[in-house]
Amino acid sequence: MSKPLILVTNDDGITAPGIRKLIELMRKLGKVVVVAPEDPQSAMSHAITIKCPLVYKEIEITEDYKEYSLNGTPVDCVKFGLHRLLERKPDLIVSGINHGSNASINIIYSGTMGAALEGAMGEIPAIGFSILDYNHDADFSRSEEYILKIAKQVLEQGLDKGIALNVNFPKLVADNDYKGLKICRQSKAYWKEDFAERNDPRNGKPYFWLTGTFTVNENDESTDEWALENYYVSIVPVQFDFTAYQQIEKLKNWE
Amino acid sequence: MSKPLILVTNDDGITAPGIRKLIELMRKLGKVVVVAPEDPQSAMSHAITIKCPLVYKEIEITEDYKEYSLNGTPVDCVKFGLHRLLERKPDLIVSGINHGSNASINIIYSGTMGAALEGAMGEIPAIGFSILDYNHDADFSRSEEYILKIAKQVLEQGLDKGIALNVNFPKLVADNDYKGLKICRQSKAYWKEDFAERNDPRNGKPYFWLTGTFTVNENDESTDEWALENYYVSIVPVQFDFTAYQQIEKLKNWE
Repeated sequence: MSKPLILVTNDDGITAPGIRKLIELMRKLGKVVVVAPEDPQSAMSHAITIKCPLVYKEIEITEDYKEYSLNGTPVDCVKFGLHRLLERKPDLIVSGINHGSNASINIIYSGTMGAALEGAMGEIPAIGFSILDYNHDADFSRSEEYILKIAKQVLEQGLDKGIALNVNFPKLVADNDYKGLKICRQSKAYWKEDFAERNDPRNGKPYFWLTGTFTVNENDESTDEWALENYYVSIVPVQFDFTAYQQIEKLKNWE
Repeated sequence: MSKPLILVTNDDGITAPGIRKLIELMRKLGKVVVVAPEDPQSAMSHAITIKCPLVYKEIEITEDYKEYSLNGTPVDCVKFGLHRLLERKPDLIVSGINHGSNASINIIYSGTMGAALEGAMGEIPAIGFSILDYNHDADFSRSEEYILKIAKQVLEQGLDKGIALNVNFPKLVADNDYKGLKICRQSKAYWKEDFAERNDPRNGKPYFWLTGTFTVNENDESTDEWALENYYVSIVPVQFDFTAYQQIEKLKNWE
């Protein structure tokens, strides 16, 4: 059997330690093509580039491994990879390892998960990996076996059409091992926003940085936040139909 | 009773005809605060600005009407409006009128709907309005009564927590009236992507523009695409839980 073809991307940019680790792991499983943003694209969600053209660079091209950077968003990387750079539809798309949580409602802001969902929209099995550690030297040592296990499983079993996996790892503390995998649902939570104010030294005018406190509304064992809090690796199966089905009949009564 | 407070935003930018029309209509219903992007932010999805600071400008400030522009995305506009510019939580957030469809899977790329969903995440009733007409002089004459009717209804009845409405209008042809409102679900569809290639005149290197053909996979009367095709105004109630619930048990068998 020929080697599986795996497309790797992320949102922290092509030089981030998270994607370098993911590339290293995926090369154990198949033929890898990397198409990743040339600079950080965190919090770009499902954005695509329409105001300026896309330019790619070849970073490394060998028989079994190809690496390209693109001046676009993570979703651009998936689209451009699929339609311009890959020789065929890949068997798997992986995105990450993101430096920071994409659990709960963070998924909606996430470029990492935007890329994974774009894969699902193209009916390609896709997984986003994230670790709850913003540090450049985040410790991935205990994540590796899980990433390989999950990716292998998806390569062997596939995923139903239109489904991607949102995988989050707790921050590794003192080399303690994780308790295992847990299949979860997305937690209800919100960001209590704030904006830090500074002053422009040239004209004294205010400018603002978005800040905020993440607040979880529930403590249910079925949620990803519970799993992560309790040192499990969380897996949420995700999809891209936004319809609130339970509202349809209610709204029909309006008419 | 005091006038309702309405936050208006969009993704085409504060000068777009669509938002000017929406402002005009909302001023008939309440006290309006506009916080809109200073330049076009189409296809920005749920992106937020984290790499550069936000700066706003006061465009017009009166007792009953306030208008600000912001150098950010539609979601930034909602967050900044709610947490810095509005005196209290608004009774309604409206986004649009977008020049172009946000029906079906276009919702996931849409800055217009990103803003509406951000409202829903803050438990504020929110509506995104779009018309299937990219022209600068799109004809809104038949949309007006629907927009007023839907906004009034939401102001009076509210929406369940976490729900927003995705409202799309067919392109108006020869002043024909719409057939009515239709409550729908999001259609299954996809973009068959392509990338148009050009050459940089300075160095001969290729650059690319994303193009594509929108392809609808189903022709079911319950969908928004069917409604729009048949000259109805489509309303899809939407939510932001990405969990694929039907997959949870299936994945548990993996373990």
